[in-house]
Amino acid sequence: MNFRTDLALERRDLYRRANNIANEVDGLETQEEVIGENIKITRVKILNEQGEQAIGKKKGNYITIDIKDLKIAGEEEIQKASETVTKELKVLINHLIGEQEDILVVGLGNLYVTPDALGPKVIQDIDITRHILIYMPEALAPNTRPVSAVSPGVLGTTGIETLEILKGIVDNVHPKLVIVIDALASRSIERISSTVQISDTGIVPGAGVGNQRKELTIDTLGIPVIAIGVPTVVEAATIAADSLDLFIQKVQQEGKSNDFLNQLQEEDKYQMIKEVLTPEEYNFIVTPKEIDDLIENMSSVVARGINFAV
Amino acid sequence: MNFRTDLALERRDLYRRANNIANEVDGLETQEEVIGENIKITRVKILNEQGEQAIGKKKGNYITIDIKDLKIAGEEEIQKASETVTKELKVLINHLIGEQEDILVVGLGNLYVTPDALGPKVIQDIDITRHILIYMPEALAPNTRPVSAVSPGVLGTTGIETLEILKGIVDNVHPKLVIVIDALASRSIERISSTVQISDTGIVPGAGVGNQRKELTIDTLGIPVIAIGVPTVVEAATIAADSLDLFIQKVQQEGKSNDFLNQLQEEDKYQMIKEVLTPEEYNFIVTPKEIDDLIENMSSVVARGINFAV
Amino acid sequence: MNFRTDLALERRDLYRRANNIANEVDGLETQEEVIGENIKITRVKILNEQGEQAIGKKKGNYITIDIKDLKIAGEEEIQKASETVTKELKVLINHLIGEQEDILVVGLGNLYVTPDALGPKVIQDIDITRHILIYMPEALAPNTRPVSAVSPGVLGTTGIETLEILKGIVDNVHPKLVIVIDALASRSIERISSTVQISDTGIVPGAGVGNQRKELTIDTLGIPVIAIGVPTVVEAATIAADSLDLFIQKVQQEGKSNDFLNQLQEEDKYQMIKEVLTPEEYNFIVTPKEIDDLIENMSSVVARGINFAV
Amino acid sequence: MNFRTDLALERRDLYRRANNIANEVDGLETQEEVIGENIKITRVKILNEQGEQAIGKKKGNYITIDIKDLKIAGEEEIQKASETVTKELKVLINHLIGEQEDILVVGLGNLYVTPDALGPKVIQDIDITRHILIYMPEALAPNTRPVSAVSPGVLGTTGIETLEILKGIVDNVHPKLVIVIDALASRSIERISSTVQISDTGIVPGAGVGNQRKELTIDTLGIPVIAIGVPTVVEAATIAADSLDLFIQKVQQEGKSNDFLNQLQEEDKYQMIKEVLTPEEYNFIVTPKEIDDLIENMSSVVARGINFAV
Repeated sequence: MNFRTDLALERRDLYRRANNIANEVDGLETQEEVIGENIKITRVKILNEQGEQAIGKKKGNYITIDIKDLKIAGEEEIQKASETVTKELKVLINHLIGEQEDILVVGLGNLYVTPDALGPKVIQDIDITRHILIYMPEALAPNTRPVSAVSPGVLGTTGIETLEILKGIVDNVHPKLVIVIDALASRSIERISSTVQISDTGIVPGAGVGNQRKELTIDTLGIPVIAIGVPTVVEAATIAADSLDLFIQKVQQEGKSNDFLNQLQEEDKYQMIKEVLTPEEYNFIVTPKEIDDLIENMSSVVARGINFAV
Repeated sequence: MNFRTDLALERRDLYRRANNIANEVDGLETQEEVIGENIKITRVKILNEQGEQAIGKKKGNYITIDIKDLKIAGEEEIQKASETVTKELKVLINHLIGEQEDILVVGLGNLYVTPDALGPKVIQDIDITRHILIYMPEALAPNTRPVSAVSPGVLGTTGIETLEILKGIVDNVHPKLVIVIDALASRSIERISSTVQISDTGIVPGAGVGNQRKELTIDTLGIPVIAIGVPTVVEAATIAADSLDLFIQKVQQEGKSNDFLNQLQEEDKYQMIKEVLTPEEYNFIVTPKEIDDLIENMSSVVARGINFAV
Repeated sequence: MNFRTDLALERRDLYRRANNIANEVDGLETQEEVIGENIKITRVKILNEQGEQAIGKKKGNYITIDIKDLKIAGEEEIQKASETVTKELKVLINHLIGEQEDILVVGLGNLYVTPDALGPKVIQDIDITRHILIYMPEALAPNTRPVSAVSPGVLGTTGIETLEILKGIVDNVHPKLVIVIDALASRSIERISSTVQISDTGIVPGAGVGNQRKELTIDTLGIPVIAIGVPTVVEAATIAADSLDLFIQKVQQEGKSNDFLNQLQEEDKYQMIKEVLTPEEYNFIVTPKEIDDLIENMSSVVARGINFAV
Repeated sequence: MNFRTDLALERRDLYRRANNIANEVDGLETQEEVIGENIKITRVKILNEQGEQAIGKKKGNYITIDIKDLKIAGEEEIQKASETVTKELKVLINHLIGEQEDILVVGLGNLYVTPDALGPKVIQDIDITRHILIYMPEALAPNTRPVSAVSPGVLGTTGIETLEILKGIVDNVHPKLVIVIDALASRSIERISSTVQISDTGIVPGAGVGNQRKELTIDTLGIPVIAIGVPTVVEAATIAADSLDLFIQKVQQEGKSNDFLNQLQEEDKYQMIKEVLTPEEYNFIVTPKEIDDLIENMSSVVARGINFAV
């Protein structure tokens, strides 16, 4: 199944619908929590290999935080959203390492491509302590955790796989945990820069846009990897396929449907739409017009979320 | 008719299709020219009121320059594209004012919103001469034309209508011609930042995204206005409606269609799709992921095009 | 007397020293206030023509706010500094116009020249209300004051005198007061981006760096002009002359001086140093290495200061 | 001896003057070449330990390229300057590695601090080939050299010593040569961003501004390191001391000097000035007001210089 989304939650929903599953998918466990009027948390846990195969993600925790109207969020909403990130992140970190153990924060992406600039922008705002602990420890409270941060760039501008760069840094700096921030692809344009997914399973950069790079996980880096992902782009064919889906649904509700449409509705329309769009060079990956502001606000949410959690 | 595009060429094509017109629309005159492998010029002339009413644009010349693969264009392609802009622009300017008469170049848009930053970015690269002609004319060749340039900002960040700002500047600086650069909305995502429309009729900022501002024309500014527009955004509902259109077309070709679809194909699917998308908060205005590079290259094309034309 | 500073306070001190005046200069009135550990306010009032001639500034109020260690200021210090700006600004505004009368905020300078970018950066953060009051007044509290804001650019990039642009806007928009923000030249490098001067006399852009432009005052714009100036640059010859001054002072204190040096100390060393430096192409205008951060912090101070005052 | 400059050429001149050496310093070899009207090359070779001790730099080649009026340079001058960089760089590279051997280009510095942004800005314009040679070698000419590039950030923003990051990358990527680009401190403000120093001895980042980091050399990285340095800052005390020097020189020429000044002239005035300035918090590190344009032009010169050399 081609999910075209990096979000475990969206994959679960697509899998359930495709297989007409009314309750939970075997091998998954899901829990929802609503905070105030604007924040919703969904915790998807992949329990075993069955769950892994169902939605094509590694065993572990995937926490999705949906934030309403982040585009026009003021200082207060940003603060509340970042507190939610902090709380969820803290739980994952404390399961993996001790309170004073060394963390390396990694901002993936390209600063000069707006929808891909989230990682490098978050790094600018992370409170770094590792060098102060080395060169003038007296300036910090005792028991301060060493935190360092890098933006390794992307393959297209460095010529080097992110894994190669990070492996080298990890081998020299010896952190006990890596937190990776990356921009993701989503299925739904309303999730763009209004959703954060936190997982304790690492990340495969570029997976959602079909440009898959080597994975950053405990298997490749030798230490646990927490991934913080924020959807910033969506494929045009996905928008079109989902719209067609909504459209037939409405036609059906109005009793105007017919056999052809009913059968069409049972199928995944993405592949058909893609075939139609591709010869026309029409299948772009797109981002909302307001992406600059969205990235700005989401950077604040994630950076504060990390700073208070570590 | 709701065209959802600022391009006269796209409006003409939509009008012809909607009205099953095989040849030219009454009141229009169209001429095509192909330059090399990558550039195509289409000159639409609106001749009279009949043409005005058909496509909802003012009488005058609308020249569309389509440039293939601008996203990955090198120095050479950018230069060739800018020469085409120069040639077309020169013809329009020379019809309107004398060789040494004063020109004011105006970059509309918001520098901090990537798909809206084209105007301010072009202004940065315009060769300004007006102040040198006033303060040290000996530094310039005789007969140099006075050129000035401003980026007035947008209503949302200034609180002032662009027309109010420009009217004031025109009244004090007394140029004989204004050249306005603006980002437009288009129907087709493949035209994003790969098309330039030059017209001698002025501009209604924001018209294509349903946020219409006061027009900048000879009627409101008192001097002729040449508009250079570049599509940078498209509505999600437009992508979906056009995809549905292509999809039904293919179903028809394959002989699988039925009465319902055949009738649907006769209608404008945009309104239906929009109704379906709007309650879902799904109808975003989007731009391609690569918009930063596209804007960069298109700024060079337009700025050089203007510098050599004036 | 060539003061090489836009700050009334520095001019007063130089005048007193040059003329061996122990008390106040005739025609001036000065008052100091210290707030907490890091903020000092000095209010210089030029009372009459005698004061005007002494320090070469127009009759009116010049309030200098010195902020210590702004470079490394945190959120709290920035907030406190901006509150001081608000308080002083409010007094001046309330003397000039009514509570609901229209204000236009103008950010002078060039966004692409770091030490000259303060004005345009402040404008980005001003809360604009004028257009909301026109198009959807119900979204604002009753009695909200109309505020608009522009960054007119600089002569070198527009080809148009700032006065010409502003005159046009003022004539069309009809504000009752203009607040102008500009980067200034100072005598002392430690004042760079750590000092704000607020005055109710308008401004002569570029005066401090010998590149004087037409004045923006009630005489030229027809409405009162409050100027908010922040020193961001200093001349190399000024650094050298002031260092030589401090150096001779120390030699004198150590009893190692001689007639030549004693006489030298009585004179203004700036002109001599400048003569020495100019043939060597050595007399640059400089700014501290940390200017990016200084401008960032000072923009926050000034923008918040204005937002709460208006 | 405290030279306060990273340029071998300036150190040599200071050493000669301090020790009244009319000809060449023992252990050095110097050669000058003038190209056209605006470019001057000086090649200083440190031959042995005696030379090393004299000017405090490692044995090897130091090539200084001075470019006049780079601030206002047009396309043509930038091209000519970059060709000079290419020619000198090529000679050094060919002495160290084979024609197809792997090169890693490293841009030191902080993108968000204008005078320190040169390295990261150059990296943006380097033509990267390593990943293309791995993933689609057919897109490149045969015998293309693998080139990769990184901007590792600075200690203050990463918490990690640059050496630790680079060591890790070198160990994983296995280049045969590293080219490091860094902003330097100079003695003379007219050299700011108008001079390039190329050396085959590696670099000690921050040495010129008293913030010395671990060296990047063949000793620490295990492969040869070519350093390309561009002065972008100067200490205020250096400006003052050099001005005082020029000033006394003039007083002497005019026959107005005296014993005290004559003796002062024999000494290094920097230390005295620094003592005078430091208690006044006056000893800033400064950069010219026009640093944004200077960095822009110098980035083009260096990036093109490297692209054609590798």
